[in-house]
Amino acid sequence: LPSKLPQVGTTIFTVMSKMASDHGAINLSQGFPSFNCYPYLMDLVAQYMRDGYNQYAPMSGVPILKQRIAEKTLISFGLSIDPEKEVTVVSGATEAIFSAVTAVVSLGDEVILLEPSYDSYAPAVELSGGIPVYVPLSLPDFSVDWDRVSAAITEKTRLIMVNTPHNPCGYVWTKEDLDNLASLIQDRDIYVVSDEVYEYITFDGRPHLPLMSHPLLRERTFTCGSFGKTFHVTGWKIGYCIAPPALTEAFRKIHQFVTFSTATPLQYALAEFLMEPSRYESLSDFYQTKRDLFCEGLKKTAFEFTPAQGSFFQLVSYGHLSQASDYALSVKMCKEVGVACIPVSVFYHDKQDHKLLRFCFAKDDGLLEKALGLLQGLD
Amino acid sequence: LPSKLPQVGTTIFTVMSKMASDHGAINLSQGFPSFNCYPYLMDLVAQYMRDGYNQYAPMSGVPILKQRIAEKTLISFGLSIDPEKEVTVVSGATEAIFSAVTAVVSLGDEVILLEPSYDSYAPAVELSGGIPVYVPLSLPDFSVDWDRVSAAITEKTRLIMVNTPHNPCGYVWTKEDLDNLASLIQDRDIYVVSDEVYEYITFDGRPHLPLMSHPLLRERTFTCGSFGKTFHVTGWKIGYCIAPPALTEAFRKIHQFVTFSTATPLQYALAEFLMEPSRYESLSDFYQTKRDLFCEGLKKTAFEFTPAQGSFFQLVSYGHLSQASDYALSVKMCKEVGVACIPVSVFYHDKQDHKLLRFCFAKDDGLLEKALGLLQGLD
Ligand SMILES: CSCCC(=O)C(=O)O
Ligand SMILES: CSCCC(=O)C(=O)O
Repeated sequence: LPSKLPQVGTTIFTVMSKMASDHGAINLSQGFPSFNCYPYLMDLVAQYMRDGYNQYAPMSGVPILKQRIAEKTLISFGLSIDPEKEVTVVSGATEAIFSAVTAVVSLGDEVILLEPSYDSYAPAVELSGGIPVYVPLSLPDFSVDWDRVSAAITEKTRLIMVNTPHNPCGYVWTKEDLDNLASLIQDRDIYVVSDEVYEYITFDGRPHLPLMSHPLLRERTFTCGSFGKTFHVTGWKIGYCIAPPALTEAFRKIHQFVTFSTATPLQYALAEFLMEPSRYESLSDFYQTKRDLFCEGLKKTAFEFTPAQGSFFQLVSYGHLSQASDYALSVKMCKEVGVACIPVSVFYHDKQDHKLLRFCFAKDDGLLEKALGLLQGLD
Repeated sequence: LPSKLPQVGTTIFTVMSKMASDHGAINLSQGFPSFNCYPYLMDLVAQYMRDGYNQYAPMSGVPILKQRIAEKTLISFGLSIDPEKEVTVVSGATEAIFSAVTAVVSLGDEVILLEPSYDSYAPAVELSGGIPVYVPLSLPDFSVDWDRVSAAITEKTRLIMVNTPHNPCGYVWTKEDLDNLASLIQDRDIYVVSDEVYEYITFDGRPHLPLMSHPLLRERTFTCGSFGKTFHVTGWKIGYCIAPPALTEAFRKIHQFVTFSTATPLQYALAEFLMEPSRYESLSDFYQTKRDLFCEGLKKTAFEFTPAQGSFFQLVSYGHLSQASDYALSVKMCKEVGVACIPVSVFYHDKQDHKLLRFCFAKDDGLLEKALGLLQGLD
C-alpha cells in the first residue's frame, strides 16, 4: 500500500518520549504537564457518568458546553459569539485543525505555513490535495516577516495557518500582526486557521489577542482551542473550533464524518468546571512562575535564550557552543545528560537547523530544578 | 466558502433524535442504548483519572489496551494478531473508518459501497478524491449480489466497504460471502474496510465472521471496531482499527494527524474491563432477548419483517399498507404515533425508497413494550 504521506515518519513526540522513558531521562520533550488535573474536574466526570451521560453527544457538542465556551470567550476576550452557530466541540485541537483545513482546502490550493510550524499542519493540507507554501519566521525573535508573507501569496492561496501563542517559539501575535494579516487578505479569498491552544498562557502581562478580535479576521478565521492545555488534561482530547456561521457549517460537515462527536461525560464535566473563570484566568500566573523558575536556572547554563512570551515551551540556542545538529544533540542530551527535549529542526519541512532546542516547562518545580541541575553541568 | 461536501445536510440521526425529543416521542431512531453502562466500568475511569492517567496516550493507543484487544480477538474469533503492529486505538469507529479510507483512497480511485450503507462511508471516500460506486444489496434479505459486485469492479477499483453485522439491515456475512469477496479481489490491488462494530451482536446462534478470519482477506482488511456498542457507551467515542502491519503503518500516519490519540483514562478503564470475556461474550444473549421481545410485539402490528440476524436494529416493511415515502412516514410516526425511527432511504445515495423503517431495540424492555403498544395501534 503506497503511503498517502510518504515523507512522514514517527512523530518526534513519540520518539523522544519513548527515548526519555527508555533512558530514565527527565521528559521535557512532549508538551504535557507532569502534574494531575483538578480533583473537582475528575469528580464531575465521575458524577456525569453515574448520572447516565454516556451516550452520543450531539454532533456539534453538548449545548451547555458550547454556551460556556461562548461565555469564556466573552469574559476573557470581550468577544460575543453564538454558541449554537459558531462553536463546535471536537476530539482535541488536532481534530479541530484537521477538520478546519479539510473544510477549506481543495486540490491545488496553496496554504501558507509559517515555519517552524507544528507537525500536523502540512499533512492536513496535503491530505486535502493542498500545497504547503513555507514562509520562515524571522530569527532571532520569531516575529512574522510580513513582506515575505506578502510575497508568498498567489492567486491560488486559499488559507494561512496561524499559531499564537506559538509552539515551539513562544511568540505572541501583536495588534500589528493582526492588522498586517487583515490587510493582506482583505481583498482576497483567503481564510485563516488559527491554532490558539495556549490562549491562556502568556507572560509579563502580554495579552493573548485572538485572531477573531480583529473585525475582518473574525469573518475569515477558524479558531482552534483545547481544554487539554488549559486544564492539565492533554489526554482527554477535547477541543473546539470557533468560526462564523457559514464557516462553522462547512466545518461541521467534515467533523461529522471524521469523529462525529466527542466524549459526552467529559463535555458535561468541562461545562460545569468552566463556570468559575478563575480556573482559566489564573493559568498565565501559574505558568509565569514556572517560566521564571526555568529561565532563572537557564541563566546558569551555557545556553542562550530569550524568555518565551507565551505557551509552555522555552527555546534555547547552543550554536555558540557546538556545531552538532540539534537532533544529534537532543539524542545525546537524553541519553547522556538525562534531559529530553525537542530539536526545533523537526518543525521545518526541510529540517533547517538553527541550533535550537525546545524544553517544556509544564512540570513540577522539583522536576524542573532537577533538570536545570543536569543542564547546568553541561558546557 | 463553497462546501467540500455540497450534497451533505444534517445527519438523519440528529434530525430524528431532535424531532423525537421535541415531540416527546420514544426514540428508536439513533442507535444508542437507553440504559447506562456497567458501574464497574465507570468506577475504573474514576480510579484511573485519580491515579493521574490524564495526559496524552501513545498515538497508537495505550499498550495494555492494544494487548487486550488482541486477546479478545483470539478468545472470540480464534485469530492471533500482534497488538503493537496491528492494533490502533482511535476516537470511535467513525474515525477508524475515516482514517482507513483516507489511508487507502487517492484521487480518482473507485470505491465500492453496498447500499443501503452507513452515512459516513461516501463522504470519507469523497474527501480523499475517491469515487463511490454503489451496488445495491438484494431485497428482501439484503444479501450481497456477487455478480453485481463483480460487474462493478474496474481497473480503478481500490477499495470495497463492508459492514457485518449490517446497519441498518441486520444481515450477517456468511463464509460464502467471505470466499466470494476473496476470490473477486485476490488478483487485484483492492483493499477492504470492514465496519464490524456490531461484532458481538448476532442472533439465533449465527456466528459473526470477521473478514480477517479469511486468510486472503486478512492481508487486505482494515477492521473497524468500537467499544461504544459493546459496552453501552456510544458517547465515549473509543474504537479501534485492526490491520496487517503494513496497512496499520499507513493507517497510523493518517490517525496521527486526524486526532493523534484518544482519551487516556477511558483507554485504561476499558483495558481492565476487557479482562473478563463474559462482559463481551454475553452481549448476543442480552440483545437476543430484546430482539425477540421486539419481534414478538411486531407480529401484532400491521408491519412485515424478517427478524434481524445481528446488530441492534430491526427493519420493518410497510409497502403493503401505504405508499407514503419512508421519510414522510417516519416524521408522521414521530409526531403522531410517538415513536421515532429511521427511514431506510437515507442510506441510499439516490434516496431509493423501499418502504422500510429501521427501529433500534437497544432500549429498556419497558420502553420497547410502550413503543410496541403505540405501533400496534397503527394500521
Ligand atoms: C500531540 S503530542 C505533542 C504535544 C505538543 O503539542 C507538543 O509537544 O508540541
Ligand atoms: C453516530 S450517530 C448514529 C448511530 C448509529 O450508528 C446509527 O444510528 O446508525
